[in-house]
Amino acid sequence: MILINQNFTKMPKSYLFTEVGHRVSDFKRAHPEADVISLGIGDVTLPLSPAVVEAMKKAVDEMSIPETFHGYGPEQGYPFLREKIARFDYNDRGINISANEIFISDGAKSDIGNIVDILDSQATIAVTDPVYPVYIDTNVMAGRAGKPLADGRWSNIEYIPCCIENNFIPKLPTKAPSVIYLCYPNNPTGTSLTHSQLSKWVEYAHRNNCLILFDAAYESYIQRNNVPHSIYEISGAREVAIEFRSYSKTAGFTGVRCGYTVVPSSLKGTASDGTTMQLRDIWLRRQCTKFNGASYIAQRAAEALYTTQGQQQTAAQVAYYMENASIILEGLTHSGLTCYGGIDSPYIWVKTPATTSSWNFFDILLEKCHIVCTPGAGFGPAGEGYVRVTAFNSRQNTIRAVNRIADKLGHIE
Amino acid sequence: MILINQNFTKMPKSYLFTEVGHRVSDFKRAHPEADVISLGIGDVTLPLSPAVVEAMKKAVDEMSIPETFHGYGPEQGYPFLREKIARFDYNDRGINISANEIFISDGAKSDIGNIVDILDSQATIAVTDPVYPVYIDTNVMAGRAGKPLADGRWSNIEYIPCCIENNFIPKLPTKAPSVIYLCYPNNPTGTSLTHSQLSKWVEYAHRNNCLILFDAAYESYIQRNNVPHSIYEISGAREVAIEFRSYSKTAGFTGVRCGYTVVPSSLKGTASDGTTMQLRDIWLRRQCTKFNGASYIAQRAAEALYTTQGQQQTAAQVAYYMENASIILEGLTHSGLTCYGGIDSPYIWVKTPATTSSWNFFDILLEKCHIVCTPGAGFGPAGEGYVRVTAFNSRQNTIRAVNRIADKLGHIE
Repeated sequence: MILINQNFTKMPKSYLFTEVGHRVSDFKRAHPEADVISLGIGDVTLPLSPAVVEAMKKAVDEMSIPETFHGYGPEQGYPFLREKIARFDYNDRGINISANEIFISDGAKSDIGNIVDILDSQATIAVTDPVYPVYIDTNVMAGRAGKPLADGRWSNIEYIPCCIENNFIPKLPTKAPSVIYLCYPNNPTGTSLTHSQLSKWVEYAHRNNCLILFDAAYESYIQRNNVPHSIYEISGAREVAIEFRSYSKTAGFTGVRCGYTVVPSSLKGTASDGTTMQLRDIWLRRQCTKFNGASYIAQRAAEALYTTQGQQQTAAQVAYYMENASIILEGLTHSGLTCYGGIDSPYIWVKTPATTSSWNFFDILLEKCHIVCTPGAGFGPAGEGYVRVTAFNSRQNTIRAVNRIADKLGHIE
Repeated sequence: MILINQNFTKMPKSYLFTEVGHRVSDFKRAHPEADVISLGIGDVTLPLSPAVVEAMKKAVDEMSIPETFHGYGPEQGYPFLREKIARFDYNDRGINISANEIFISDGAKSDIGNIVDILDSQATIAVTDPVYPVYIDTNVMAGRAGKPLADGRWSNIEYIPCCIENNFIPKLPTKAPSVIYLCYPNNPTGTSLTHSQLSKWVEYAHRNNCLILFDAAYESYIQRNNVPHSIYEISGAREVAIEFRSYSKTAGFTGVRCGYTVVPSSLKGTASDGTTMQLRDIWLRRQCTKFNGASYIAQRAAEALYTTQGQQQTAAQVAYYMENASIILEGLTHSGLTCYGGIDSPYIWVKTPATTSSWNFFDILLEKCHIVCTPGAGFGPAGEGYVRVTAFNSRQNTIRAVNRIADKLGHIE
């Protein structure tokens, strides 16, 4: 018998962005003349920077002659890139991480998805709510989520609400979970945690022997000084946290595919028979078995981000999107909408007017303003009553979108 | 408690090629003057073909301006590539596969490794022996392999020997497994199955409701007319088989990272509660959740393989390696060694002299001839008494390697 993973039968049919895509397609078919502006999916719009383009062409040239051709690379990633990461993203910022603890991949989503392979099937999970759906769905597939409940939650996952009522600062879990997913700056709310707020989680993880899976995909958007760029800025995090980093939002690599994951050698776990192992060793074994390394060309592209030119060009891209974020924050607030995030993040988390639901406000913005956002409810129950608006568009489109909302919706009370 | 996947504690520490790498490093340190020729790991040596290089540079140029920049692509892969694959690799050869059934990835190893996600934890596994270690190791990690036995086998996996005694034609399984891994042309033995021999497996899978995971990474090396390039050349295979394809060996993409997997829509599985689902839908869900698509540049590179120039240049690369394979086959046979494979495959499977073990013969070739091969025992118990030699090297090195074996080992009786 072809026996399939039972957990797939429990999963909701469509992924959030697929449903958004369907609604937008339907609208465009019905209104082919509409000039739809997407502030929905978190995808970059600026092209690759000149330093990256130059490095990629050079890498392609190397691949075209036998003397400099590169076949299989190390599964963990080339030392030339891992050493740059260790130095520029960690050591130069006073953080103790070595090249040996860094794993290059084809993107943070792969690593965040695949990390569940190294966890016990009985590991309990906590997430902040609203939440990037991948954290939930990957654990559903692995059989750790329990049963789907009527409100969209899963019975074995603890959801920690982040909402206006707690100023988007999550409380610590009620029961110590085995694994805690944290994403800061947060997707989707765009809010951040200060050094002292994040320290509480590291202390909690130490006290309760939990693993923190820290998604830092948006760290380059941080503007405030007291917001940590890495969880390893917090003392003790090397014993409790894995950190995921992405070049997708930092440097426009969504179509290039390169990211990395840090698994400190001091991070240990226990198997059900009591054996203790380094998580770094297990993750290396997983990657050597199921992955053949990231593209040589993508790794050379990522390396170029650590040159002076690369750093300047990347900073300019981030600044461009953050100017968009300011325009959105100011414009929507002026229109009477209540907004969060957008300071350390390219995402603005907008409260829907009065009792309008997320999907209803999504439809209103699409139909009246021809603007695509992402319904907050798609990120979990605590996302109901919000929508996510992204700064990933051209300056012109951002300004037009904000003006359209002001014109078409008027001042919202 | 940080609970880790117990199955990792059962796994042997090092992956086969890691151990080979260590022995070679040790030898080179002890003999820095030695001119070591590697016919070990199956990695290509010819550079990317001009058609591929041109397509990649064009793609990088597209990524450098806003009008043609590509961010996130479809998780399943771009239609421009999936349509070419459907047409050139299947439809033009009389095989019914649609673009909708094709999934582009960053390489066959990722897909072969990740496919276990969609199978039930109780699914039983059969493999041919010797075997590509990834089939075993990924199922060990997923908890399907049972216990390690003294001879290196796992208690819950059926190993079907392929050796001189059965002319490398595996018998059908004794107990109907849920999943059968087949790799043809075979890695590591280099042998192939004819249309009628493979048909027996498809019929068996139909009769017993098994899933065949068919690894066709080496199909472009097939020379004989009666050897199928795709399992879908066999009537009925659409209902029982998933096929994995790679551009790594075909077009030198080991460092580029692009491959694809075919999951026909007529392939259905059953969950433990009796629910029936299309495997295509489940795999799509898995990929949308845990993967963000292959690099745009790599997909444009793969597309270039389907142009007239691309096809000619690829065929020339394959012909080059196959000429190496002939030289090895003839040379080693002349030296008195008994060889298999090497006709429809870049691998030659060499019987070790008399009762010499795989690792002993590996050491002899390294120490006496300064040649690296891969010990057959590393591929499973039935690989003991053989080594794998690859045709992936320059013509000059291939000739030198064969001559060295003749000179240093003499005629082996």
